[in-house]
Amino acid sequence: MKFARLGPIGRELPAVLVDGRYFDLSPIARDIDGDFLSSGGVERVREALRAGSLAPVAGAGSLRIGAPIARPSAVVCIGMNYAAHAAESGSTPPDVPIIFLKTPNTVVGPNDAVEIPRNSTKTDWEVELGIVIGKRTSYLASPAESIDHIAGFVTANDLSERDFQMAVSGGQWSKGKCAPGFNPTGPWLVTPDEVDYQNLALRSWVNGEARQDSTTADQIFPVDFVVWHLSQYLALEPGDLVLTGTPEGVALSGRFPYLAAGDVCEIEIEGLGRQRQEFIDATNERQHHE
Amino acid sequence: MKFARLGPIGRELPAVLVDGRYFDLSPIARDIDGDFLSSGGVERVREALRAGSLAPVAGAGSLRIGAPIARPSAVVCIGMNYAAHAAESGSTPPDVPIIFLKTPNTVVGPNDAVEIPRNSTKTDWEVELGIVIGKRTSYLASPAESIDHIAGFVTANDLSERDFQMAVSGGQWSKGKCAPGFNPTGPWLVTPDEVDYQNLALRSWVNGEARQDSTTADQIFPVDFVVWHLSQYLALEPGDLVLTGTPEGVALSGRFPYLAAGDVCEIEIEGLGRQRQEFIDATNERQHHE
Repeated sequence: MKFARLGPIGRELPAVLVDGRYFDLSPIARDIDGDFLSSGGVERVREALRAGSLAPVAGAGSLRIGAPIARPSAVVCIGMNYAAHAAESGSTPPDVPIIFLKTPNTVVGPNDAVEIPRNSTKTDWEVELGIVIGKRTSYLASPAESIDHIAGFVTANDLSERDFQMAVSGGQWSKGKCAPGFNPTGPWLVTPDEVDYQNLALRSWVNGEARQDSTTADQIFPVDFVVWHLSQYLALEPGDLVLTGTPEGVALSGRFPYLAAGDVCEIEIEGLGRQRQEFIDATNERQHHE
Repeated sequence: MKFARLGPIGRELPAVLVDGRYFDLSPIARDIDGDFLSSGGVERVREALRAGSLAPVAGAGSLRIGAPIARPSAVVCIGMNYAAHAAESGSTPPDVPIIFLKTPNTVVGPNDAVEIPRNSTKTDWEVELGIVIGKRTSYLASPAESIDHIAGFVTANDLSERDFQMAVSGGQWSKGKCAPGFNPTGPWLVTPDEVDYQNLALRSWVNGEARQDSTTADQIFPVDFVVWHLSQYLALEPGDLVLTGTPEGVALSGRFPYLAAGDVCEIEIEGLGRQRQEFIDATNERQHHE
């Protein structure tokens, strides 16, 4: 199944996409969030679809698409999880997963305009396979247990400001990972039965020119390993988002210019949908809430 | 004023402490959280106290003390913010604030027992002045604007597993900062009018022996600078927690043993209250929710 949240920022309607049509989940779900995912919400939607009891979302095509999950309690990221990206970043591939965090308020809709942060000259894109956690995950016994804790997958753009991340950070990356709007997510939360998640094409483009073009098969630490590994160090909550790293082809490589106001970034993961962000100048007044 | 949350995990009652007595805020506050702080909650409590309309909390002395704020949207930490601690950690003092994050689900009550994480041999204490944010904070014009965005201050223990943080992390610290229970917070949220926050003694003890003994006057980057600086890189939300770094005297220095099951850690900040944690072995079943 493909879950989505449609409508204005902060007032998104939970929905499910079936054969190109969005159906309204608000009679059976307050939101697509940790409570929904950990309380059998997916199965309730499956039954409602079987029973034919859901109504289409009126005018769905004209609604904004929000992030397909409400704000997570944490966004946990894996760094340098593709060997060629580690190389273009001037690093050797890691022998253990590298963990950093983004603030949850970076999560926005897949097509929302994104501000270039003030004083930024190195805003960069990163297409990433995102894992959405389905139930509390702590001290899993093996990677084989991970899939039972995964609610689904999303397309995510782990936007990054490279000077904030590395030049003025004392080496701790989060300073360049948390600017408002720096985590476009969606369009859909796709359940694991619909995708071969360790074998998905992921691609990005800037102003229509190809940038990244890789596959999740190239991950150094695959999805099941990552979730198990994280569970040894922290507790993941239902609705949390885990970003699994980006492949080569970002501006940090030196092969492409960084993003500037007016640029358009698009990213896509096979089966998980496509995003399109226009980049704009930061203003003092603009509020980001989701 | 001193705010507190009293009662079992997940069912804490909001309260205010006046002259040694806790008064029940539940008639005028759903919780002590971002909504309360950003909607004039503090002023409403002040008026209710003037009017004498609040009832004492029955049996307050026998209730568990929770963290004095409900789960924040983010816990943002400043690393190496005291020169002597940077030195004992083998680092030079930073020339810019170093930012890392803890997952918000690490926040627990000040006296809750804390599990030594599985496979941990280097669990360490860190007494820190915590800032609680009162309203959305983005792109402040100067450090002088910071105080208007601060709801109050808390005692916090930034518990850390040093091998997880540095030996098996690829250099990104969060892996050693997010174990369940790794952020005892409280007992009170103290409003800025009650403390000279840049001149507070902070101390820690293990099994009754002194460890840290310093003052917030020694911070490299003071509170007002930290909040302004953070606001250039990310948006702080009402109810968010900012930990401002720890002074010298932790086990990482090599001068003291790390924590083990059975140890008792106490920390205290002048005017903000004292914590006491017993450390216990990790178990698979134990759940941490707050």
